[in-house]
Amino acid sequence: MTSPDPGTDTGLLAPGRVGSPAAAATGDRAYLRAMLDAEAALTRVQAALGLAPDAAAAAVTDAADPARFDAASIAERARAGGNPVIPLVADLTKAVGEAYGPYVHRGATSQDILDTAAMLVAARTLDLILDDLARTERALARLAAEHRDTVLPGRTLTQHAVPTTFGLKAAGWRSLVLDARDRVGAVRDRLPAQLGGAAGTLAAFAAYGAEEPLALPAAYARELGLATPALPWHTLRTPVADLAGCLATTAGALGKLAADVLVLGRTETGEVAEGSGGGSSAMPHKANPVRATLIAAAARRAPQLAAVLYGSLAAEDERPAGAWHAEWEPLRDLLRLTGGAARDAADLAEGLRVRPEAMRAHLDLTHGLIVSERLSAELAPVLGRSRAKELLTELARRTYAEGRSLGELLAEEEELKGLDLAAPADPTHYTGSAAALTDRALERR
Amino acid sequence: MTSPDPGTDTGLLAPGRVGSPAAAATGDRAYLRAMLDAEAALTRVQAALGLAPDAAAAAVTDAADPARFDAASIAERARAGGNPVIPLVADLTKAVGEAYGPYVHRGATSQDILDTAAMLVAARTLDLILDDLARTERALARLAAEHRDTVLPGRTLTQHAVPTTFGLKAAGWRSLVLDARDRVGAVRDRLPAQLGGAAGTLAAFAAYGAEEPLALPAAYARELGLATPALPWHTLRTPVADLAGCLATTAGALGKLAADVLVLGRTETGEVAEGSGGGSSAMPHKANPVRATLIAAAARRAPQLAAVLYGSLAAEDERPAGAWHAEWEPLRDLLRLTGGAARDAADLAEGLRVRPEAMRAHLDLTHGLIVSERLSAELAPVLGRSRAKELLTELARRTYAEGRSLGELLAEEEELKGLDLAAPADPTHYTGSAAALTDRALERR
Amino acid sequence: MTSPDPGTDTGLLAPGRVGSPAAAATGDRAYLRAMLDAEAALTRVQAALGLAPDAAAAAVTDAADPARFDAASIAERARAGGNPVIPLVADLTKAVGEAYGPYVHRGATSQDILDTAAMLVAARTLDLILDDLARTERALARLAAEHRDTVLPGRTLTQHAVPTTFGLKAAGWRSLVLDARDRVGAVRDRLPAQLGGAAGTLAAFAAYGAEEPLALPAAYARELGLATPALPWHTLRTPVADLAGCLATTAGALGKLAADVLVLGRTETGEVAEGSGGGSSAMPHKANPVRATLIAAAARRAPQLAAVLYGSLAAEDERPAGAWHAEWEPLRDLLRLTGGAARDAADLAEGLRVRPEAMRAHLDLTHGLIVSERLSAELAPVLGRSRAKELLTELARRTYAEGRSLGELLAEEEELKGLDLAAPADPTHYTGSAAALTDRALERR
Amino acid sequence: MTSPDPGTDTGLLAPGRVGSPAAAATGDRAYLRAMLDAEAALTRVQAALGLAPDAAAAAVTDAADPARFDAASIAERARAGGNPVIPLVADLTKAVGEAYGPYVHRGATSQDILDTAAMLVAARTLDLILDDLARTERALARLAAEHRDTVLPGRTLTQHAVPTTFGLKAAGWRSLVLDARDRVGAVRDRLPAQLGGAAGTLAAFAAYGAEEPLALPAAYARELGLATPALPWHTLRTPVADLAGCLATTAGALGKLAADVLVLGRTETGEVAEGSGGGSSAMPHKANPVRATLIAAAARRAPQLAAVLYGSLAAEDERPAGAWHAEWEPLRDLLRLTGGAARDAADLAEGLRVRPEAMRAHLDLTHGLIVSERLSAELAPVLGRSRAKELLTELARRTYAEGRSLGELLAEEEELKGLDLAAPADPTHYTGSAAALTDRALERR
Repeated sequence: MTSPDPGTDTGLLAPGRVGSPAAAATGDRAYLRAMLDAEAALTRVQAALGLAPDAAAAAVTDAADPARFDAASIAERARAGGNPVIPLVADLTKAVGEAYGPYVHRGATSQDILDTAAMLVAARTLDLILDDLARTERALARLAAEHRDTVLPGRTLTQHAVPTTFGLKAAGWRSLVLDARDRVGAVRDRLPAQLGGAAGTLAAFAAYGAEEPLALPAAYARELGLATPALPWHTLRTPVADLAGCLATTAGALGKLAADVLVLGRTETGEVAEGSGGGSSAMPHKANPVRATLIAAAARRAPQLAAVLYGSLAAEDERPAGAWHAEWEPLRDLLRLTGGAARDAADLAEGLRVRPEAMRAHLDLTHGLIVSERLSAELAPVLGRSRAKELLTELARRTYAEGRSLGELLAEEEELKGLDLAAPADPTHYTGSAAALTDRALERR
Repeated sequence: MTSPDPGTDTGLLAPGRVGSPAAAATGDRAYLRAMLDAEAALTRVQAALGLAPDAAAAAVTDAADPARFDAASIAERARAGGNPVIPLVADLTKAVGEAYGPYVHRGATSQDILDTAAMLVAARTLDLILDDLARTERALARLAAEHRDTVLPGRTLTQHAVPTTFGLKAAGWRSLVLDARDRVGAVRDRLPAQLGGAAGTLAAFAAYGAEEPLALPAAYARELGLATPALPWHTLRTPVADLAGCLATTAGALGKLAADVLVLGRTETGEVAEGSGGGSSAMPHKANPVRATLIAAAARRAPQLAAVLYGSLAAEDERPAGAWHAEWEPLRDLLRLTGGAARDAADLAEGLRVRPEAMRAHLDLTHGLIVSERLSAELAPVLGRSRAKELLTELARRTYAEGRSLGELLAEEEELKGLDLAAPADPTHYTGSAAALTDRALERR
Repeated sequence: MTSPDPGTDTGLLAPGRVGSPAAAATGDRAYLRAMLDAEAALTRVQAALGLAPDAAAAAVTDAADPARFDAASIAERARAGGNPVIPLVADLTKAVGEAYGPYVHRGATSQDILDTAAMLVAARTLDLILDDLARTERALARLAAEHRDTVLPGRTLTQHAVPTTFGLKAAGWRSLVLDARDRVGAVRDRLPAQLGGAAGTLAAFAAYGAEEPLALPAAYARELGLATPALPWHTLRTPVADLAGCLATTAGALGKLAADVLVLGRTETGEVAEGSGGGSSAMPHKANPVRATLIAAAARRAPQLAAVLYGSLAAEDERPAGAWHAEWEPLRDLLRLTGGAARDAADLAEGLRVRPEAMRAHLDLTHGLIVSERLSAELAPVLGRSRAKELLTELARRTYAEGRSLGELLAEEEELKGLDLAAPADPTHYTGSAAALTDRALERR
Repeated sequence: MTSPDPGTDTGLLAPGRVGSPAAAATGDRAYLRAMLDAEAALTRVQAALGLAPDAAAAAVTDAADPARFDAASIAERARAGGNPVIPLVADLTKAVGEAYGPYVHRGATSQDILDTAAMLVAARTLDLILDDLARTERALARLAAEHRDTVLPGRTLTQHAVPTTFGLKAAGWRSLVLDARDRVGAVRDRLPAQLGGAAGTLAAFAAYGAEEPLALPAAYARELGLATPALPWHTLRTPVADLAGCLATTAGALGKLAADVLVLGRTETGEVAEGSGGGSSAMPHKANPVRATLIAAAARRAPQLAAVLYGSLAAEDERPAGAWHAEWEPLRDLLRLTGGAARDAADLAEGLRVRPEAMRAHLDLTHGLIVSERLSAELAPVLGRSRAKELLTELARRTYAEGRSLGELLAEEEELKGLDLAAPADPTHYTGSAAALTDRALERR
């Protein structure tokens, strides 16, 4: 009987991540490679500490070539014991041969390898994400500087509030990207190797002759470029929770950018557009904000993936029956979803088209009411707070009824004769500290 | 340049679903096939209604052979427009050739095809899940009948409460499986085809000559064996929410079975064991409850996948920018995760080893306090409620201190001379209506 | 020492539910009342079956007056045993007095009472929600009928696609509300009473003399107007999962309405507005879509509350240590959040202001490209498919560049002389089956 | 008409938090106080900067006494505008009186006050949580030191693996608590005040005369003891995401402790017990692990609350219509749920009863197979790896069949005569580096 279709996934339903650096770094082959890296490092470290012959280390390192292993077959055989390390160790031991096979995986438990591999994959993927966050940040910094003084309506609860600047908006997006970068970077630097043996006591290493078993995890972590944990963390899952947090934060930070691009780019608004909008199967003229859409989709999913990972903190015993297994796919999904979003965000930010003229035009949509807050402040000392409010409320009603601007109507008021309200009534003059805030925000590196 | 690793996933991190019927039914190839089924049915239906030549229908049906299409390439090209239907239509049109190419996808929108494909995949997978639920249900019915009178401690908040039977426990598991079956079955029968065109008005079909455009979605649904929706449901996502609900319910129902197997099978308890426990990479003697572990892991993830789908109900416009895209992978994941769990549950239920002698032994662990509720009811009429309570509290303390059973101590009490408390003190006699409840529950089909 | 502030919540952070029927039906007092209803019914049913004196039933029923009980004190004393039924039973027993006190709670377990109370609260709240869904549905039906032929741009991925009607949009919202209603109604009719005793075997009732213990749960359910379950469901939580599903579906269905109102009501679009928009603390002129905002907020939270409930399906033993306790607040929150959203949706739908003139004006925003799909279908037979496409693509480019409409440009084309494209180029003529779909959808009751 | 029951919640369904410091710090009164603190600080800061008379600052500070305000009434009136600040400002302005009323809330927006209040509540609650984490940590440190050499079975996937120590287990729990503490502490120190005005530009402050508007947020933050943000963060929600992360991590960390207490305390295992177990309404003898149960329930809910908060990162515009509103209750719930769990964890850790004799007894449950890993390492050099494995596999089978220990059977083997296997076969001698790891972990402060 030929093997049934294992349900292989090449990204058909995942345009948000296909072809991204993170996708390649998180596929089954990347995990296979990382598990083999972990196994090889384990033998090398034992050799370095005199617990195995140097030739064993060399043999295992040579054999641990991902190209020689069949991920699908390992996946299938993983069902018996419930994790892929068991069949992988069998295959690796066979590949190493009789002489040094006994040194493969010696003293370790499956979770040592799978957790270490997950951290290697995470470290490699976070580095790629950091690259794309850096690209995004640079593009947003450019936008913020360029549009430092481009005025557009500030919107709250979907309605025009008071003016703001596109520079401040872009600076805000950038500050979120930097927040994400800082959190990802801090977590990345702390990602630990895992080595504890069956119940996290390092007992087998002593049984195999280690005189200072605690030296092993430290050397192992160094060999792999990961951090040394204070304790084996088979059921102390802070590193996974930290990943959940920094990735959900990143996806959400990029989701803010996407949310704004989506509302600002609606056909009626048209203040921004993606550099190269995506087409439609039915309407050739459409230019869809595809990058923003895919980022928005990622931002909707990331929190729930993180929730699974946080939920797995409550793991019983020295290895739980389910909580650990529930982490594997969500962690990978969260890495690649966020990685895809970071790639899309970089493309989006670099290509974003900004239409200052549309922004300017929209400032007049409320007939000047967008500056009523300011006019209220101007008129209060002149008319008294209560008369000022009364007058503005009345004129506000008339703007819509008569299709005239608040500025025009104010100019006709007898009691305001002699008062020059042209500047206060000009929305482009009511941006407060937007420029100063933008400047200050751009100083952050 | 060769194509980079797209991050292919063959199940290395997914022992819970690898090799399951649901896995094969939900892979990229299954989706590709379903999209092609949808396209071919669309042209056939147009031909049947006189809107396309019969030869076009035949040509498209012939061309729509999944073996001819490259899922990875389509996935990559899906990035431009943000969905895989656009490149698929391009490839299919080319495969059909110039003469009938124009009849491919005519009048439809990408979402018509992708939503219909998702419903086809769901229908096919739910059928497989129903098969495994039926297997599970039968095995549990056998266990319940066989152990109708096997007594074991009932446990609440981890502590022995009063006795119950393993039959009632198994009947309870079965009733959950039947609940899941009923919900899955009802949803499966309602899964609708999707056909509405660009904005759900069927306008293009009229433009291409349909005199009764409403006939099209109905004929299309019939052609595909799906239900006819009252309205195009591009942003009326009840069908997806219904899937979320029945699948989360199924995963949770199976999760209850797994949770019980995991606690009853702990080394100290050993009342049940999996038919073939999984091994360990470090300890050859271990027999792990792997099936239960993988089901438990699925039950931890399903609610969050369902949450994403429920969250996508709130979708703006005629097609949302993100909410729809966020559904694709979680729906697939939920189908295959639940499908894998159903397969594992069937294996688990069919192979479960039950140890009545361990159950019997545990009834004595609390020195008879497990029947204190009953003894309290027996003694109250004799001693008065308050004296009965006082006496039992005192003796309860003594059972642990003296290592003797409550029955023994009661037999020594002067004030109870002549009262035969042997039967009331026997935990196996205090199972209430467990057998009657089991019988009644087993009548459900 | 005076009692510390227990952290009382009167809705300060919950404008979405404050003052709603559902809020009153789900507060602590409502739960207290429902628990007392459950206790009183239990004694009455035992009296009816000859297991207690009629006077006991009367005494317990009299004593079970919520006004006599102190929820905050019960809450505080609930900490010792981890649930509020234990102190409630103590207080109720005391209130009943020595003679009949022993008949309070006899044979039951805390979970019997708390689960039954939760189902009573759910039943009462779902009835209120059904009322508000009915109000909403009626208002939407009126809107759909009134605007059956009001044309506006259909939007996909934020961009204009092809025209649709506001009638079809409203009919779609209504169909979601009806879907929600059907699901809520079905679940409401199945809500079961809970009665099983300490481990769900009904054993204590037999110990207290019941000859047919299975008659008790049936009589109890009838007494309370709830359904009779086949088995005690202490750890068979389908009823809770069903509530999760129908409530998350309802919140999401209303969330779709809100999402559309929010985008259609943006200042630049202004096609709809809430009947009475909410003000701002800073800008007196603002009319915010407050109802839609609060519904949208509810729709964001409901899926996660449902996820907790689905997660609690996997509950070990005869009563789990945590999974049950984790249900209480999320179930209440989901009921009142959805109930508040239903109230707001009814208000929103009844007061919604529709601006057909704005909709009409927006049809021209794309210079006629909104009907390019139709023109393509018209021109293909005349010019050939390929030339038609080429011409439209060229003219599409010119529309934006020259600020003229596609219809105008087509009228100048030599090769189209004699062809009357006025009607096909009119967006109000390209609504396909929108009206027919609306009519059909409105037939659903 | 009397006001309907607003659905007040005093904790009837929340035994996990009732009476905890965090509950009092997060109730409606605590939020009311924090909002008033924010308003008063705002006027004081304006006075300090010369933008308001000192008397205004004094008047507002005097008036901002929570005892004078009616939370329920404010809650009800919050419905109109969708947030409680609007009616609060109205009440406060009235309380301040005509002379200085105009200085109330001047230049601010509702979100400035509500966000600042949320951060004040968070800061106050995190401080309380830190106290309880410190109590927990100290108790766990004592347990770890006291049981540094108490041996018990290590368990993986529910089955005995190899021995470990209770000291290492407790040290692991403590390390998670310290991880949580570090994350909570870091987030607490960064909690920012919010001040930006209607669209985050600080424009109104300039309109009211501020010459250096950027000085205001800084002074405001200092006045309140919060951090100064680089930008107004109305839609830059990193602070909320950070809270989500550290609180979900804390709840999960405590959930690990609870999960272990629950499995180790099961009736069959009984290795630990809560200091004062909770009773049952039906079975007076039961001592339930109530603290662990309530912590476990919190750990099940926290991830989903965090998910809502992470989901709100993707917030459109200068204030979103829903995403912000969806944060309020989940943030409060997460604070008080985690706060309650921290209180319960401290009680649990301080009162935990440990039963070393039960632990010791369980080491023999697998007839010595718990040290098979070690014996395999001992025998391999003597018998050769393959013969050693064969022998152990055969003897493992016989242990269960014959009810004898592996040590006994090995002692009878001819080929092992002269080899002293007593020490290697003693499970208490196979704890590897457990003690050293414990010592090292306890050095962390």
